[in-house]
Amino acid sequence: MSASLLRIAELNAAYAAAIDADRLEEWPEFFVEDCLYKVTTAENLRLGYAAGVIYADSRAMLRDRVAALRKANVYERQAYRHIIGLPRVRAEPGETVAETPFLVVRTMRDGRMDLFATGLYLDRVREEAGSLLFAERIVACDSNRFDTLLAIPL
Amino acid sequence: MSASLLRIAELNAAYAAAIDADRLEEWPEFFVEDCLYKVTTAENLRLGYAAGVIYADSRAMLRDRVAALRKANVYERQAYRHIIGLPRVRAEPGETVAETPFLVVRTMRDGRMDLFATGLYLDRVREEAGSLLFAERIVACDSNRFDTLLAIPL
Amino acid sequence: MSASLLRIAELNAAYAAAIDADRLEEWPEFFVEDCLYKVTTAENLRLGYAAGVIYADSRAMLRDRVAALRKANVYERQAYRHIIGLPRVRAEPGETVAETPFLVVRTMRDGRMDLFATGLYLDRVREEAGSLLFAERIVACDSNRFDTLLAIPL
Repeated sequence: MSASLLRIAELNAAYAAAIDADRLEEWPEFFVEDCLYKVTTAENLRLGYAAGVIYADSRAMLRDRVAALRKANVYERQAYRHIIGLPRVRAEPGETVAETPFLVVRTMRDGRMDLFATGLYLDRVREEAGSLLFAERIVACDSNRFDTLLAIPL
Repeated sequence: MSASLLRIAELNAAYAAAIDADRLEEWPEFFVEDCLYKVTTAENLRLGYAAGVIYADSRAMLRDRVAALRKANVYERQAYRHIIGLPRVRAEPGETVAETPFLVVRTMRDGRMDLFATGLYLDRVREEAGSLLFAERIVACDSNRFDTLLAIPL
Repeated sequence: MSASLLRIAELNAAYAAAIDADRLEEWPEFFVEDCLYKVTTAENLRLGYAAGVIYADSRAMLRDRVAALRKANVYERQAYRHIIGLPRVRAEPGETVAETPFLVVRTMRDGRMDLFATGLYLDRVREEAGSLLFAERIVACDSNRFDTLLAIPL
């Protein structure tokens, strides 16, 4: 069963709201158990490189990541704001394929703001028990210049 | 009666269009008579501070604000562009509660552009005579660094 | 017949996706044969100046433009990301009039990102053989400072 454009847009809005409000513990719950989450660059994708800057292939790995972030605390000095465009969706058997542009602005503790990331979400979305979940989310960033503190989920 | 996500999104689009086109006189008309409009920071909200950088608790106060802006003329040297994300809405008795990310870019007279503000609109929306109006709009900015000329409505 | 807000939003998403993925050859196909495409500034529009920085009054001219871009290759050093807001639409006889805020971020080859353009799309959209096409797209930029390499379609 495929999900409508509007439902995918709502999923993205909820996803971004959880991250931006620092409710990181909710983040893994947007994925299926057996998920794929990867942050990479548009260029790497074009060149066919499989490797990503960040890579997780289960919900447990996403939870580990959040636990590590909470320990490191580095992200606390910043706030993030996702602005997410309208998805382009395509129904496939058993799932919905979506492609969605995003932009993230970072605000430093002293008030300075900068463009942190822009890119495309390349998603496979499934319905489980009435909820839409990401089976796959590839975050293709436009810039290859990654902040070494790239810690928060994109 | 609660408003749908799409109607709230249309309300936001009309609100932003009025401000960005410098039709400021229309701005108070997006609110109910007995409204609350406040610009504050996400941090102040988190800490429970009630005070805002800008505060108005009636449509008349919003009109006064526009009149003051027209007199001061400071805003004329800049143009603003709101980019508003999709709202997350929740129906409550008699109104709709919405939370919507936004970003505002400022363009100076000489053509320079900068990120002016990002944040969340925290809204209570009511239907009056067939129109959706803001009963409450709390503008929670991500940055605590406010331009002293923060004059235009956000 | 007029198009709904959601269909116009989908048209914008497809338009932006084609440009940002460097599928420029698809760009002219978003327009009717006898179209008008113009990039100008909000200020020029306000002052009633008809001239635009970029001007094309047929799909053939748009195709020529893409051919020239492919030859010049200048755009290859950058990537663009459109973030497009929700349109405000109005049905008119035989077409839909739409006004949509946009923001474009440019990423340089070395990874630097900047705000490239913000503004409003002022559109007349028609349905031809089941597809929505732009009869007119006036791109009103907020900034009058145009990059001399302003080459990609906005």
